Amino acid sequence: MKPDTIIELNHGAGGSLMDIFLSSLINIYKNKSVEGGIGADEQDDGATIQISKDSILIVSSDSHTVEPIFFPGGDLGLLAATGTINDVVMMGGKPIAITCAILIEEGTRYSLIEKVISSFARTCDQNNVAVIAGDTKVLPRGQVDCMYMSTTGIGIRTSPNVIADNNVKVGDKIIITGSPGMHGASLIAGREGINLETDLKSDVAPLVSMLLPIAESGVVHAMKDPTRGGLGSALNEFASKSNVGLILEEDSIPVNPAVNGVCELLGLDMFSLSSEGMAILAVVPEKAEEVLATIQLHLSGKDARIIGEASDKYLGKVVIHTSIGGHRLLRKPLGEPIPRVC
Amino acid sequence: MKPDTIIELNHGAGGSLMDIFLSSLINIYKNKSVEGGIGADEQDDGATIQISKDSILIVSSDSHTVEPIFFPGGDLGLLAATGTINDVVMMGGKPIAITCAILIEEGTRYSLIEKVISSFARTCDQNNVAVIAGDTKVLPRGQVDCMYMSTTGIGIRTSPNVIADNNVKVGDKIIITGSPGMHGASLIAGREGINLETDLKSDVAPLVSMLLPIAESGVVHAMKDPTRGGLGSALNEFASKSNVGLILEEDSIPVNPAVNGVCELLGLDMFSLSSEGMAILAVVPEKAEEVLATIQLHLSGKDARIIGEASDKYLGKVVIHTSIGGHRLLRKPLGEPIPRVC
Repeated sequence: MKPDTIIELNHGAGGSLMDIFLSSLINIYKNKSVEGGIGADEQDDGATIQISKDSILIVSSDSHTVEPIFFPGGDLGLLAATGTINDVVMMGGKPIAITCAILIEEGTRYSLIEKVISSFARTCDQNNVAVIAGDTKVLPRGQVDCMYMSTTGIGIRTSPNVIADNNVKVGDKIIITGSPGMHGASLIAGREGINLETDLKSDVAPLVSMLLPIAESGVVHAMKDPTRGGLGSALNEFASKSNVGLILEEDSIPVNPAVNGVCELLGLDMFSLSSEGMAILAVVPEKAEEVLATIQLHLSGKDARIIGEASDKYLGKVVIHTSIGGHRLLRKPLGEPIPRVC
Repeated sequence: MKPDTIIELNHGAGGSLMDIFLSSLINIYKNKSVEGGIGADEQDDGATIQISKDSILIVSSDSHTVEPIFFPGGDLGLLAATGTINDVVMMGGKPIAITCAILIEEGTRYSLIEKVISSFARTCDQNNVAVIAGDTKVLPRGQVDCMYMSTTGIGIRTSPNVIADNNVKVGDKIIITGSPGMHGASLIAGREGINLETDLKSDVAPLVSMLLPIAESGVVHAMKDPTRGGLGSALNEFASKSNVGLILEEDSIPVNPAVNGVCELLGLDMFSLSSEGMAILAVVPEKAEEVLATIQLHLSGKDARIIGEASDKYLGKVVIHTSIGGHRLLRKPLGEPIPRVC
């Protein structure tokens, strides 16, 4: 990037502009992985460190600056725990511990912080994740908006198979565990004051019990939760990092009517809106139906579908067969259309 | 804490008011350690996870919000890397990896970010620490002041001996590796526009090469870097967590004249000002002189001294024998006198 570039919101929005920014930053680092593990260069959901012959440490870090702090379906604390726990799971790791660094604006009431931290603690506890360390800083008014959290998740992967964005194989079936964009759409609807007369809310939910056993079974090549930048970003990362084409059937992608409504009202692309409780998986084809059936047994996975497969055509691209018989390229979005979704 | 308490700057300033706040927050968590390791309850420099018979993982997290971003002696990037690397060393761990989550204010120039990240990268590289993962978020103007960094350090401790704040033993000699308060005093001087006609600058420096071999040698019971809240907080944590008395000789504490000057001008207590390149150690008495000599070979340790010892009198307290023959209690300060020192 040019030195005099002014950083815009879209440089942090999970899309193609963020790719340019992040690549420039990561390029500055020299040492980016520990002994051949997954590191910063891979820009995956987390990093890996081989700690013994049979086990790999998974490490994933995120900042959480969602606005508003309490939103339909969740709050900052639930989101911070969920986002980091899910990132560890996306790398095939069993989350065991989390650290939490908090920035608080001077003048914030303790009861608000207590509510957020209680939600964070409950989510960690329900997923057997210990809160082992942290940091708490209070900043003068106007230098942080109420409260932000930064979390690092630690997990252990004992299965020898790699789960990584760059590991999708030709022939893999692509499974989606739910309908896309519910988190982003619910935040946008709330901020714009759109009354949908529906119960649209964020899908934020930990995916440990639904996806960890599947990840550990050895039939998953890649797994990703489409947060910032939405499904469009996540699918394009599979395609470009693994150098495969993804060929998807539009009709098979589950659509939430309320999300669709928000998108039509505001002229937004559903595929650029974030989710916080669903994932896409690249699964060996002969096991795809079995994996799908297992996922559908969970509440977060009741709408799961096989939406297509990885191909040796359209390398690096995502192609959607449309419902009217044509096909279109699903490009990586510029980024999530609104700031502070996560 | 009462629900309607309004959080003030001092609740995050590293002193006694922060203790009350942190204890309330940590009390909310249920799961706070992994299988008996050091966890959130200990409020130490980091946490420990036993990962094999012979090795322990050290994990430490911090947010860095120093203002100004470029200060005499360093910058945000150097401080972020140093602070986290040193915290891993304070637990006796060899730092191997770090993650870095960045918050950037919309409108910031790329060249500024590049300069900070270059400094961060250089410090990590010089200490053989890989930058393995991260997160980058851009927030609207006025919701972050230019740039903050949150880092998590990962280290490995192979030595079986525990190094922890609560592990000081009666008879241990207390070593200080440098004069206190240089980081805090240089920031205060800069902000107040005090021209001291001296070269007062922050002592920020990684302590891996100076302290890790000593930590691994088995003669150190406890080690701590006096950051927020300064030497007064760090010494009181040794005393209260280990339930020993610390009896120190005032004359033996090395004092930087410029720090002293700033404190006299502004009526500040040197013992509440932060350092970012020094540590206190509790060392088995028969090895103290040898450890001291080793430390003094390093530039960061040239002013190191033995300042006193741990006693079974004055349990939980820090007592200073003054230069005029009296003695006084060194209480834990309320907190660092200015915000955003680290």
